Amino acid sequence: MVEPASTVGIPVNATPLLKDELDIVIPTIRNLDFLEMWRPFLQPYHLIIVQDGDPSKKIDVPEGFDYELYNRNDINRILGPKASCISFKDSACRCFGYMVSKKKYIFTIDDDCFVAKDPSGKAVNALEQHIKNLLCPSTPFFFNTLYDPYREGADFVRGYPFSLREGASTAVSHGLWLNIPDYDAPTQLVKPKERNTRYVDAVMTIPKGTLFPMCGMNLAFDRELIGPAMYFGLMGDGQPIGRYDDMWAGWCIKVICDHLGLGVKTGLPYIYHSKASNPFVNLKKEYKGIFWQEDIIPFFQNVKLSKEAVTVQQCYIELSKMVKEKLSAIDPYFDKLADAMVTWIEAWDELNPSTKA
Amino acid sequence: MVEPASTVGIPVNATPLLKDELDIVIPTIRNLDFLEMWRPFLQPYHLIIVQDGDPSKKIDVPEGFDYELYNRNDINRILGPKASCISFKDSACRCFGYMVSKKKYIFTIDDDCFVAKDPSGKAVNALEQHIKNLLCPSTPFFFNTLYDPYREGADFVRGYPFSLREGASTAVSHGLWLNIPDYDAPTQLVKPKERNTRYVDAVMTIPKGTLFPMCGMNLAFDRELIGPAMYFGLMGDGQPIGRYDDMWAGWCIKVICDHLGLGVKTGLPYIYHSKASNPFVNLKKEYKGIFWQEDIIPFFQNVKLSKEAVTVQQCYIELSKMVKEKLSAIDPYFDKLADAMVTWIEAWDELNPSTKA
Repeated sequence: MVEPASTVGIPVNATPLLKDELDIVIPTIRNLDFLEMWRPFLQPYHLIIVQDGDPSKKIDVPEGFDYELYNRNDINRILGPKASCISFKDSACRCFGYMVSKKKYIFTIDDDCFVAKDPSGKAVNALEQHIKNLLCPSTPFFFNTLYDPYREGADFVRGYPFSLREGASTAVSHGLWLNIPDYDAPTQLVKPKERNTRYVDAVMTIPKGTLFPMCGMNLAFDRELIGPAMYFGLMGDGQPIGRYDDMWAGWCIKVICDHLGLGVKTGLPYIYHSKASNPFVNLKKEYKGIFWQEDIIPFFQNVKLSKEAVTVQQCYIELSKMVKEKLSAIDPYFDKLADAMVTWIEAWDELNPSTKA
Repeated sequence: MVEPASTVGIPVNATPLLKDELDIVIPTIRNLDFLEMWRPFLQPYHLIIVQDGDPSKKIDVPEGFDYELYNRNDINRILGPKASCISFKDSACRCFGYMVSKKKYIFTIDDDCFVAKDPSGKAVNALEQHIKNLLCPSTPFFFNTLYDPYREGADFVRGYPFSLREGASTAVSHGLWLNIPDYDAPTQLVKPKERNTRYVDAVMTIPKGTLFPMCGMNLAFDRELIGPAMYFGLMGDGQPIGRYDDMWAGWCIKVICDHLGLGVKTGLPYIYHSKASNPFVNLKKEYKGIFWQEDIIPFFQNVKLSKEAVTVQQCYIELSKMVKEKLSAIDPYFDKLADAMVTWIEAWDELNPSTKA
């Protein structure tokens, strides 16, 4: 049996790492009471709350947190016609927060994620671990059997090429979940009682050329290195698919990181995922994705970006053309998605003129 | 501080998994007292001891173990002129044991490897974990963020393609080491006191297309699937290089497993590695390897085997030709090594006529 940690009595660190260089993005439809237990770790940072659903609803945020909040009306006002690229009634709307942030780093977390315990019973400061992951290099070009070689007490093992020991810059840190694992609807239906109780004390780089299922629940990244590719696609209201927003972003960022020589890490930190979503509702959202991904993944496995694509934006536009050309045959949805990818980049560049490719 | 486990009082399981289908291969130059502590786990299995160095020396084996022992005279007698492919005065000689075995599975372990403790203090039955690893599939084609999806309490996460969930047959299980990590001489010199105390409770598949540094200290494999590629090269006496025997085998088996659609796992089980070898001696053995590997690894990263190569032997012979063609420019040693690779396959087929390609 695994339980969330209590953080009562843990003092707030007023000057944590990257305090002024990181925004926390939270998509939500409800009051953010869950932040109360994150207070010691997250209160010093600025929050960007993306309110999904009914804009007239008031979202309460616990006292003492510094935040800006955007609802659908705000998104429409800020982006105008380009707001069409931001999903509605789906947590994919969170990527609007990535776009309006002016910071170098983003941490995004779902509002049903609580603080996890490590095996010693200590509350896990998830953000601190993400920051460690992002600030030290990745090793995408060769596998290190003792996991993260930069971690205290570890190193590169015998046979690891010395020329590769400087590693690559880390663009993405993907954290994991205790308690409710991130399963698809069929697995939820088959194993309704399965809980993740295994705390694996490791951080590792996902090797170059290998795709992975990126979950948006507990995720951090370097906006300057990869931000414009962190688009969560068209999901939810009016779309034929849901629950593939983070997957889509994960496939896109991975092929672009591979092309640009950037690293993607997975493993620590864990959060405690409190709530299993309804598998029947999930199945309805997912079922097209479940068969589409059988074609989408080979597509991404074979993506070759051109040498001319040297910025994230250029890579992303190139990718959008390939999506239109290769995936539209699966469903007209991909034609629309490819257009939205272009709109997303236009909107990104408008709001972030200094990073424009 | 990490210590080996005591196995006193643990009864010998008379009918463990794969009792009659697995041989344990141990290269040594000394008495095998270390087996005493492995008795509960290893005594039921048959041992193949490859005695390195002076053949006139008598090696003592603790009572109750069933074994066959080969010294250099035996190797010369059995292989005749083909004995030239078996290294002398180097633990690379262990691969002779792989060749003379008639079993489906091999576990090989060094004589300075003791029984490790898991975090609960329990003695780790390393062989049992290797067998679990070998008997359940690998997932080389897509990364599962919750590690081994076949393990109890785990599964494939959301976004993992259903068509890939049957996985691939597992050919190799690479175990890790607590206490003395497997570092190269420069790292040993720089961090003489570093000890591995981190027990990472995970088994994972090394993705297709990714190379890794395979250590021969705590290794198991399926002889039928990959045996003929498990050649530890020419090392030690009369050779310009040492301590790259297992690395060589690791690069070769990985490209062949990738070509044949087989899986390679790393992670659990841990053994307790008791003794740091002398870094000055190691540096002398290793230094050519340290710069040669900078060319060897790109070579292996670019190996493309032909569609005609459908058996391990065919793959290995093809690889030997590429080694001769591409690596001989580094040093004439690789010309000799490429010839030895062919001799190894000839000797393998002679001793294992039924598996001949």
